[in-house]
Amino acid sequence: MSNNRLKVVFLGPLASFSHQAAAESFKNTDAELIPHVSFADAFSAVQDQTADFAVIPFENSTNGSVVQTLDLLADRTSLYTDVKVCGEYYLTVHHCLLVRKGTYPSGWSGYDGSITKLYTHPQAWGQCENVLSTHFKGIERQDVSSTSKAAEIVAKETGEKAGAIASKFAAEHHGLDILMENIEDRADNTTRFLILRNTRVERTGSLAFEKRSPMDSTGITNKTLISFAVDHASPGALANALLIFKAHGLNLTSINTRPSLKRAWQYVFFVECGQAPSKENKEAVLQVLDDLRRATESCRDWGTWKDQLCVRAAS
Amino acid sequence: MSNNRLKVVFLGPLASFSHQAAAESFKNTDAELIPHVSFADAFSAVQDQTADFAVIPFENSTNGSVVQTLDLLADRTSLYTDVKVCGEYYLTVHHCLLVRKGTYPSGWSGYDGSITKLYTHPQAWGQCENVLSTHFKGIERQDVSSTSKAAEIVAKETGEKAGAIASKFAAEHHGLDILMENIEDRADNTTRFLILRNTRVERTGSLAFEKRSPMDSTGITNKTLISFAVDHASPGALANALLIFKAHGLNLTSINTRPSLKRAWQYVFFVECGQAPSKENKEAVLQVLDDLRRATESCRDWGTWKDQLCVRAAS
Repeated sequence: MSNNRLKVVFLGPLASFSHQAAAESFKNTDAELIPHVSFADAFSAVQDQTADFAVIPFENSTNGSVVQTLDLLADRTSLYTDVKVCGEYYLTVHHCLLVRKGTYPSGWSGYDGSITKLYTHPQAWGQCENVLSTHFKGIERQDVSSTSKAAEIVAKETGEKAGAIASKFAAEHHGLDILMENIEDRADNTTRFLILRNTRVERTGSLAFEKRSPMDSTGITNKTLISFAVDHASPGALANALLIFKAHGLNLTSINTRPSLKRAWQYVFFVECGQAPSKENKEAVLQVLDDLRRATESCRDWGTWKDQLCVRAAS
Repeated sequence: MSNNRLKVVFLGPLASFSHQAAAESFKNTDAELIPHVSFADAFSAVQDQTADFAVIPFENSTNGSVVQTLDLLADRTSLYTDVKVCGEYYLTVHHCLLVRKGTYPSGWSGYDGSITKLYTHPQAWGQCENVLSTHFKGIERQDVSSTSKAAEIVAKETGEKAGAIASKFAAEHHGLDILMENIEDRADNTTRFLILRNTRVERTGSLAFEKRSPMDSTGITNKTLISFAVDHASPGALANALLIFKAHGLNLTSINTRPSLKRAWQYVFFVECGQAPSKENKEAVLQVLDDLRRATESCRDWGTWKDQLCVRAAS
């Protein structure tokens, strides 16, 4: 790579939630953050070493798994053999009502009801129903491709009094005023992002994505992601594969499935397991992989990283 | 219900793949087929007994699980307590190029390249890439909400020579000519539908959704769908729940997950298992449910039905 700064790709546009997750994950490093329009482009950038890291949404606490990410992790044609997961980041989705700078100098307390049009991503309307139905009933709504795009439009708007529902991060990026903060109905709507690296790029191995001092080890857990495919026709194959995790003392925390696309009704399984960080457990993961290789048609170790959820809960 | 005909709801519009699946599933019965616009409406119609059955897409061999259906089966607020799965239907997705009746009397062999615009659902373009890039490169494409809608538009079109990519079923429904048949790239793209009934409506219990004579029992398998939630904080809880199926000799064939929406990062699991239809296996399912009730926070039996995939493979 041409200069020494770390290159981190995220799913664009600029000021998206992925951008925010990347900025917060790498806030203590000198990293250049680069938007990519597609999930596959972000994976490719890490594989072909044009980027050091990628920050990719993996699941949302309300909407569930991000299918596009699982399909790339299925890696059916072995495009991303050097890519591994090295960290995760939890971003709680907070929406704000944003307006052009200076429109309402005394903020919400001085708001005179003059907004005539609102912009946001279709999903965000449903996430802010309480505030919208109480204060903005009947106001024209315009769907746009992202909350960040909504903020951008309102920043450029001059002919009408418009509002955007978007993040505080987008407000800062596009230079907007926050008229109302945290207008989402559900306070706990959170997206989990995975941080990907290329195992052949040495300098990406040294960054530790953990939020507190490694001296304090109480409650710290590692997470490991393993994918595998079993022979559908063989009775008990799936149960046997899952049993292997238990046999080596690893706790299954999630299971996901995608079609294998090799044969209809055969699947790739994604299993996450949690364990305390110890030499024994590191050994246990290796033994699980060893046993899985014998019990499955194919399997892959996607890496082990610090569980940030348990760090959050403990802090 | 007002008359004696069976009422079967499917996901609209008319001539959709769901309509076709409902028509084929109930072809030997005197059933009235009724379109419903939403998944939730179809579930409600069965629960409140305004319909006898609902035919609902459950998974596609290429795109995976249908999240809307899983979310209704999660039944987080106990709206559908009387609904059970009583059958399944596999529909292979075949696309045709449809034109207005009489436009090309000698069919594809006499086609003069005069189509100027094509209509279909966005997903269908990608499923017919080979034919489109070979014979219709550069022709204007118009996205519409369903393949059936595309057929409807072309049937009404008079000012231009237009084509629709839709099913043979839609061609018959809208009275169009088939210019090219089976233009899909993947011959095995198949959607599995579940057939739902209300357990309180006696007359829905007697219909058997199987494709061949019960006299020939070779290779016949039952499928059972069970959903459950486990305490995320309890190590081994998920593995223990899955072990119960194996302990009673039932073969896990698929696992799906959705957020519980009770607490972030807690999930509802959907497990399907297969077993030969026997008194012992019927007993085994009851024992699994009994054990699961002790090992999980909640669990639910969604019913047992004849596996149509194994019938297809054997026939």
